[in-house]
Amino acid sequence: MTDWRMRLTGQSGVGLAEYEMRAVTPADDAALWSMLEPVFRAGDTYAIDPAISRAEALDFWCGGTHSAFVLEEGGQALGSYYICPNQQGGGAHVCNCGFVTAKAAQGRGVARVMLEHALEEARKRGFRAMQFNFVVETNTRAVALWQANGFDVVGRLPGAFCHPDQGFVDALVMYRRL
Amino acid sequence: MTDWRMRLTGQSGVGLAEYEMRAVTPADDAALWSMLEPVFRAGDTYAIDPAISRAEALDFWCGGTHSAFVLEEGGQALGSYYICPNQQGGGAHVCNCGFVTAKAAQGRGVARVMLEHALEEARKRGFRAMQFNFVVETNTRAVALWQANGFDVVGRLPGAFCHPDQGFVDALVMYRRL
Repeated sequence: MTDWRMRLTGQSGVGLAEYEMRAVTPADDAALWSMLEPVFRAGDTYAIDPAISRAEALDFWCGGTHSAFVLEEGGQALGSYYICPNQQGGGAHVCNCGFVTAKAAQGRGVARVMLEHALEEARKRGFRAMQFNFVVETNTRAVALWQANGFDVVGRLPGAFCHPDQGFVDALVMYRRL
Repeated sequence: MTDWRMRLTGQSGVGLAEYEMRAVTPADDAALWSMLEPVFRAGDTYAIDPAISRAEALDFWCGGTHSAFVLEEGGQALGSYYICPNQQGGGAHVCNCGFVTAKAAQGRGVARVMLEHALEEARKRGFRAMQFNFVVETNTRAVALWQANGFDVVGRLPGAFCHPDQGFVDALVMYRRL
């Protein structure tokens, strides 16, 4: 738990001890929603109804088979991710994750740090691979980040995403063994 | 609703009028479970926990965003399928389906007939494409059927399915525009 703290850039004078990656609790609802709301409302990266309610969004992020984590800096949430089995039964050895970064923390490597934690967490839980089912091709920062971290594009869904500005664009299936 | 009735082979003397494709009702629970149970218990085609309960299986098949249909011959269920949006928000114009055929009705073209109905239903509901997220590569009959009906393999998930006999095999993502 020390290495990823070193990798965050642009820290605002907060000591390393102030960083924490931990499981989400109900007390994080407001912080989570403040990160999720702009991303879901924008509707350009997640295949989620942009009109989703706060309760539905929090239930999606933390509920069901999802385990959610939050990355904090001095008590301030920088980002969050969830991990879950991507399928059940014979497909339960492959996990899926979703990531969100606080607007104010963008460009500091938060997603990369969370991915590193997620890969470690996935191995700990016995998963053999990680799959992203629906990476919108116009989300080039995400595509580049996943590719730089060992994910291959194993599928391309033609016109599967209706982008609010760019119309129908492809979505990518990305996969990496652990 | 006349053409697909003609396409079923091996009818046991039942008149065409005896065939019906209709929405599932709670009265179909027993018939549905009799078709789903052997398929889910076998665990070699669906990424579903083979130990799934009857209630969970019926809820999966008919609940949430799923609309389920049943194909009957003289009151006897030959097969069932569900249709649902594959994603929400910007991905809601692509649907997903699942199919099951009664053991006793296998080899009669039941899945093909249901697919035809599903494609028509999908267009009626305004979907622009149909996607199968997880076609186990060893399920060669399904792969061949979907390919013969306009589906392309747009993704391959390496070792994403643990087959009860064959170990880790690939799963395919299949896609067709409507």
